[in-house]
Amino acid sequence: MDWERIARTGTSEAVLCEPKTPRQIEAIVRHAQELDRRLLLTRLDRDKLAHLDAKILDYDDVSRTAILGALPPPRAPPRVAIVCGGTSDVAAADEAARTLAFEGEASSRYVDVGVAGLWRLMEHLDDIRAHRIVIAVAGMEGAIFSVLAGLVPSAVIAVPTSIGYGVAAGGHAALNAALASCASGLAVVNIDNGFGAAHVALRMLGASIHRTTMRPFMPASK
Amino acid sequence: MDWERIARTGTSEAVLCEPKTPRQIEAIVRHAQELDRRLLLTRLDRDKLAHLDAKILDYDDVSRTAILGALPPPRAPPRVAIVCGGTSDVAAADEAARTLAFEGEASSRYVDVGVAGLWRLMEHLDDIRAHRIVIAVAGMEGAIFSVLAGLVPSAVIAVPTSIGYGVAAGGHAALNAALASCASGLAVVNIDNGFGAAHVALRMLGASIHRTTMRPFMPASK
Amino acid sequence: MDWERIARTGTSEAVLCEPKTPRQIEAIVRHAQELDRRLLLTRLDRDKLAHLDAKILDYDDVSRTAILGALPPPRAPPRVAIVCGGTSDVAAADEAARTLAFEGEASSRYVDVGVAGLWRLMEHLDDIRAHRIVIAVAGMEGAIFSVLAGLVPSAVIAVPTSIGYGVAAGGHAALNAALASCASGLAVVNIDNGFGAAHVALRMLGASIHRTTMRPFMPASK
Amino acid sequence: MDWERIARTGTSEAVLCEPKTPRQIEAIVRHAQELDRRLLLTRLDRDKLAHLDAKILDYDDVSRTAILGALPPPRAPPRVAIVCGGTSDVAAADEAARTLAFEGEASSRYVDVGVAGLWRLMEHLDDIRAHRIVIAVAGMEGAIFSVLAGLVPSAVIAVPTSIGYGVAAGGHAALNAALASCASGLAVVNIDNGFGAAHVALRMLGASIHRTTMRPFMPASK
Amino acid sequence: MDWERIARTGTSEAVLCEPKTPRQIEAIVRHAQELDRRLLLTRLDRDKLAHLDAKILDYDDVSRTAILGALPPPRAPPRVAIVCGGTSDVAAADEAARTLAFEGEASSRYVDVGVAGLWRLMEHLDDIRAHRIVIAVAGMEGAIFSVLAGLVPSAVIAVPTSIGYGVAAGGHAALNAALASCASGLAVVNIDNGFGAAHVALRMLGASIHRTTMRPFMPASK
Amino acid sequence: MDWERIARTGTSEAVLCEPKTPRQIEAIVRHAQELDRRLLLTRLDRDKLAHLDAKILDYDDVSRTAILGALPPPRAPPRVAIVCGGTSDVAAADEAARTLAFEGEASSRYVDVGVAGLWRLMEHLDDIRAHRIVIAVAGMEGAIFSVLAGLVPSAVIAVPTSIGYGVAAGGHAALNAALASCASGLAVVNIDNGFGAAHVALRMLGASIHRTTMRPFMPASK
Amino acid sequence: MDWERIARTGTSEAVLCEPKTPRQIEAIVRHAQELDRRLLLTRLDRDKLAHLDAKILDYDDVSRTAILGALPPPRAPPRVAIVCGGTSDVAAADEAARTLAFEGEASSRYVDVGVAGLWRLMEHLDDIRAHRIVIAVAGMEGAIFSVLAGLVPSAVIAVPTSIGYGVAAGGHAALNAALASCASGLAVVNIDNGFGAAHVALRMLGASIHRTTMRPFMPASK
Amino acid sequence: MDWERIARTGTSEAVLCEPKTPRQIEAIVRHAQELDRRLLLTRLDRDKLAHLDAKILDYDDVSRTAILGALPPPRAPPRVAIVCGGTSDVAAADEAARTLAFEGEASSRYVDVGVAGLWRLMEHLDDIRAHRIVIAVAGMEGAIFSVLAGLVPSAVIAVPTSIGYGVAAGGHAALNAALASCASGLAVVNIDNGFGAAHVALRMLGASIHRTTMRPFMPASK
Repeated sequence: MDWERIARTGTSEAVLCEPKTPRQIEAIVRHAQELDRRLLLTRLDRDKLAHLDAKILDYDDVSRTAILGALPPPRAPPRVAIVCGGTSDVAAADEAARTLAFEGEASSRYVDVGVAGLWRLMEHLDDIRAHRIVIAVAGMEGAIFSVLAGLVPSAVIAVPTSIGYGVAAGGHAALNAALASCASGLAVVNIDNGFGAAHVALRMLGASIHRTTMRPFMPASK
Repeated sequence: MDWERIARTGTSEAVLCEPKTPRQIEAIVRHAQELDRRLLLTRLDRDKLAHLDAKILDYDDVSRTAILGALPPPRAPPRVAIVCGGTSDVAAADEAARTLAFEGEASSRYVDVGVAGLWRLMEHLDDIRAHRIVIAVAGMEGAIFSVLAGLVPSAVIAVPTSIGYGVAAGGHAALNAALASCASGLAVVNIDNGFGAAHVALRMLGASIHRTTMRPFMPASK
Repeated sequence: MDWERIARTGTSEAVLCEPKTPRQIEAIVRHAQELDRRLLLTRLDRDKLAHLDAKILDYDDVSRTAILGALPPPRAPPRVAIVCGGTSDVAAADEAARTLAFEGEASSRYVDVGVAGLWRLMEHLDDIRAHRIVIAVAGMEGAIFSVLAGLVPSAVIAVPTSIGYGVAAGGHAALNAALASCASGLAVVNIDNGFGAAHVALRMLGASIHRTTMRPFMPASK
Repeated sequence: MDWERIARTGTSEAVLCEPKTPRQIEAIVRHAQELDRRLLLTRLDRDKLAHLDAKILDYDDVSRTAILGALPPPRAPPRVAIVCGGTSDVAAADEAARTLAFEGEASSRYVDVGVAGLWRLMEHLDDIRAHRIVIAVAGMEGAIFSVLAGLVPSAVIAVPTSIGYGVAAGGHAALNAALASCASGLAVVNIDNGFGAAHVALRMLGASIHRTTMRPFMPASK
Repeated sequence: MDWERIARTGTSEAVLCEPKTPRQIEAIVRHAQELDRRLLLTRLDRDKLAHLDAKILDYDDVSRTAILGALPPPRAPPRVAIVCGGTSDVAAADEAARTLAFEGEASSRYVDVGVAGLWRLMEHLDDIRAHRIVIAVAGMEGAIFSVLAGLVPSAVIAVPTSIGYGVAAGGHAALNAALASCASGLAVVNIDNGFGAAHVALRMLGASIHRTTMRPFMPASK
Repeated sequence: MDWERIARTGTSEAVLCEPKTPRQIEAIVRHAQELDRRLLLTRLDRDKLAHLDAKILDYDDVSRTAILGALPPPRAPPRVAIVCGGTSDVAAADEAARTLAFEGEASSRYVDVGVAGLWRLMEHLDDIRAHRIVIAVAGMEGAIFSVLAGLVPSAVIAVPTSIGYGVAAGGHAALNAALASCASGLAVVNIDNGFGAAHVALRMLGASIHRTTMRPFMPASK
Repeated sequence: MDWERIARTGTSEAVLCEPKTPRQIEAIVRHAQELDRRLLLTRLDRDKLAHLDAKILDYDDVSRTAILGALPPPRAPPRVAIVCGGTSDVAAADEAARTLAFEGEASSRYVDVGVAGLWRLMEHLDDIRAHRIVIAVAGMEGAIFSVLAGLVPSAVIAVPTSIGYGVAAGGHAALNAALASCASGLAVVNIDNGFGAAHVALRMLGASIHRTTMRPFMPASK
Repeated sequence: MDWERIARTGTSEAVLCEPKTPRQIEAIVRHAQELDRRLLLTRLDRDKLAHLDAKILDYDDVSRTAILGALPPPRAPPRVAIVCGGTSDVAAADEAARTLAFEGEASSRYVDVGVAGLWRLMEHLDDIRAHRIVIAVAGMEGAIFSVLAGLVPSAVIAVPTSIGYGVAAGGHAALNAALASCASGLAVVNIDNGFGAAHVALRMLGASIHRTTMRPFMPASK
């Protein structure tokens, strides 16, 4: 872990587990324990979890995230709404929610409010508009991104997901829909990147926790 | 012109002018006149029109279509609604409307009712639902396709357009959004293909005009 | 399940199982039972079926669909013909047939009538032309779509399939062939989307069963 | 113009001129004048400008934007830094700056601070970090996005541009670099979309000007 | 010109003019004249022709080919049939015909026999089957390739063309249809490559004219 | 099996097993046995073979082909050379060889003569040139196609393979190299399609075995 | 193995195992042993290793390489620096290092010095600059390539890796970033091709070991 | 111009003119004159040249490069061979040659030695092998890259060009051929990037001229 980076820029102590071996992940976790530091593990599947000391980790099956150490008390009321096109998009949505919670930000979740049944969205619209930031999570054609950005004045962050088949497979149709939206002011992140969306939100909220104590960026070169 | 095809299958006497030379188009028009037949010319730009006898053609600038011969009286009330995402999508929308008119089908047009301002669509929704078929025309991210298909029980035909820039350029983002839609029952045609959408509608309505007199399909081979 | 959507728009009580967990599917099925509602489950593979109560479901191996509740009596004679390029395309074809049956529409199936042996198609042509709607299902190069649309005046719905290898793999070659067809009036759906093709047909036929009792679309916003 | 949309959601009175005809643009401008409303015209090239009443418009050659009506006084000090990879990226950067200015937000511009000469960026780093939001504009490989997001805790919005040739042509290399960045918390918009980046910033800052007077979103449906 | 190559492999004295400057083409023509050699110029547009001595060249507008020197007497009866999907495909078809004529091979041309009107093809089928080789030329969805290969036992060479719009633009849909064909034994060449198709035919026919006098391939290296 | 097709067009009794279920394959084999017909099964992996009566099939592991019935005596000397870029391309090469053998055509195989060691190819060049047809099989960058077509006057059929990683994965790099070759007269088939290449060769050689007894193509339609 | 190629061009005795069967690999190893030759095996996974005589091979798990025979003494000090964007890129980096070691070139490795934490790179910059050649290995957005090429005057070879998800998956985003870099003088190899990067380095260093004794390239053709 | 960059890293004083306005280019040239510095202008077309003081620039039509100031005496004998697939590739080849000349490196040019006529390459092979570095320039299928890398032990730099049509258009087929080459040790640059290839060569040769006087890289941050 690059503890230096955390000290300097206020980014989160997070580990993307997918391309790492169990041994590499275990070493990082042990090192964090020795330094008495909190840690967020993302894209950690059950197979790799089995190599770790599960007792010390707060693991969540849906989002495939694990947290080492205590969560800060959540800030109330929630400033971030997470809106989910379909039940299958919950994995990415919860990755975002857990990443926010790790930094002390609460979030409200609205599931299965896709455009095929627009009244579901309409029923929740006033609630959603009450949040400063909206994270919209959807696969397939991603029409919800444009609909939401046209309905709320909040900052809207689009997380396209890889849910879908045929031309939707992989998430590129949803990604392009978010980028090409006729509704202005959509901020887009990579496919399935709930973690990244949470960090866009955190930067927006100015909430990253070490900022005040950050060291000067760059030492003199030799 | 393949007048045989028209006699046998009831397809329209239509000419796609884009890949043809002015001389080829002129020959087809002259031939139709000699046979005293009506003709629909699509994707005919002003440069090529200048090589033709403009007096005998009813030319429309926006849709780039020309019609030779009289239009049949339009069937009332209109059975097809044409819904347009933005003012820039009118070209494809009007190609559909003119193709329908050539076959005697009237249509109602609803312009600039994109998802970025959803109430526009909502104001017209009950009117739109009164039509048997809805042709939706949109570029950029094409979110209107899913929204409409979720709101009306009519048959919905999506015409993605090439309006847009960056990832939208060429119309593939809108096309994929239509195909990957989470709203079931969307019929999709090629990018900018207003003519094709009209023909899907005509086939649906059973309205193609020569059907009762169609000849048996296939003569004996030698 | 969004029973509200069904009440308002007449769409089918269908569940796309592929991106859902067994637990999510089980909950939906149980809920439908409690409400005494019929249900169509699509893309349900044998592994997930093993987690459900198989006795109450009518499962079909080829189409990977399951139906909860009784089928309505099929409307006779069939108004939809389903034409299959090759034996490998039967999965998508049967998904369409089962979706139609769930809504009370019968269909006639014509298998292995691809263009490589055109006389097979010719032998059945007059039968096929007797149907109001033709659903064509084909992978590889999808030439059957254009051939059919040139031979019948019915509405033709193209279902490209992912059958094939090399440049055909994934179904994009067949999809593009359907969209770019020189035969006018082809309605296209996503790759392998037999369910969607059936719903295009149902919308065309005006057959969706709850329409007359549909509620007004949108309640007043707060 | 959809003045209703402006009233309801606080989005900007902006017109994307690229896909519109001169006549359409002229009508919108005249209408805005009659209603005594301000207007921002984007992607307006000199050819189309020649069809408009240039005296009443404040036109900028580099960003191809025109403004009708007076600018609000710029808020000081600037809360947005606009960082430009190369001199060729200035067009998109200035579209962002003009869009911000139209809404009363000042911005600081840092030109030609690409990664090929990293010390240029380093010299300005402390200045850039003083802004709440950083808009980074770059074409070719877009490496500056990751470098910046790794160096500043501010919200960083990436605008990939279409500058470049070969694999960079069209801006997709830069777009993908922004989306795939190893630095967390990058918000991405469409290629060359300076206008969109400004609106992401405005939503972040909560600065859209009509919000307090916005009408309730959705009237009752009939 | 690489006269050596001609001597050794029997390939044609052909010049692809598209990427060459008028000066380069002129020098090649002059050199051929001095050596008293025949020459086939392909993709030579009228602008470049204006820089050449048009009197000594037999230029054809449709195929954009020019021939220097006399044609050999055509071999009778024709062994190659050239079948054209639409009138817009004639350019590539005639490039093939002219290339064959340059080598002394006659060809029969069948225009506008696309699959949208299959009886047109059927009327000519017995004639077409009488040829040893069939060159099929088609754009858009290229369904004619599969239909032909399923109907004739001759060698069939597919020339996809760039005719079409939307997903067909550029010819890739037709190219993939040819490669993915369910009809076995299709030989495919690059998009719009009539010249290449003619050379596949020539190699098949063993007709390249210098073969008997070809020199040994490779001299000893130093 | 479409025995009619075989009778009419002389195509091979071949079955592409990859997209078929073991039960479908078994039914075809049994049917062929009952009719006392020979059969070529391609892309038949060991798992599916286990469901068949292996004793009656001549199975080949490398090419994954099985043959039911006796092979005709091979025609001597071989008229087809099969040239293989690398040892990993042998699967597709042997699929071609077995398909030829099934039709009574012998072939000569030249393995591992890729361009990275050009002298290997040179040592065999005069032997290769003695064949009327050359089938070249290569993955990765497919440079051997152009080199061969420049060195031999025979008809050259390119079979790109899916061997390779990174930009080569899937075979598209080799396919495009074959289609874009600067050497004229290359006939190209789909990726890994050894079967198709053999059929191009067979059509070229006029060797398909039932031709003289083929029935007239098309019966009268009803 | 093509021992001739090694003798003539000085290329390495290397075997790409991925597309080869265990039997093919075993035969090559045995042949090398009989000839008493060294051998480098790349992309050899554990499953295939189990089929070989592991005792005679020096196998490395991370780089999936095996070496038969003794390594030459490493040249000191190292002339090649290998810089790794993330810990997940070590596999490709170590493939490069092992390939260099096999040829007697030592290398220095710098791990996890990506642009998200630029000071890590800065701390090592003077050390890295002391090497004649820098091999940079990175996935995701590959920003490190441009940053490095802008900071060091050495020859820089970029190895994009397939690490990443969404738009980064497969390594194309990193590949395009390397090719489109605004920093001049980057040499790029295929995705994950550590072996190839090492060989670019070896050719640069003029270090391939058999050069002085290479035979003349091409024997006389017959 | 970033004269600092030149001082620190020894990169060339080069200006990519394509995306710059004439006014921007003129300002850079004037600034260089005032500082009495040499300058290399690339991708400068005749239209933009017309806005500059042509008398002070040494302009070359084919490579579209201009040089301000005197060339250093060329180092003899040339260490770089530039091999050109076709006459149409000369533009990129001469951009490389001029870039090398600007830095005092001479180069030998071998034109039209593509693989379709391999003996042309063979005649020059011994000459080419005498150079330390080979820059290979080719479009279409780019087979020459693999052939050359298999024949010479020198470092080979591949410059794919955009020459070609159909699947070759844009240069991606040649680019992928270079990256996927079966011949190890090819260094690849962006399409048409002769300038970049020259800089790879210069870095390889350690020839960039200011290196010895380069300043320390990074000043202390504030």
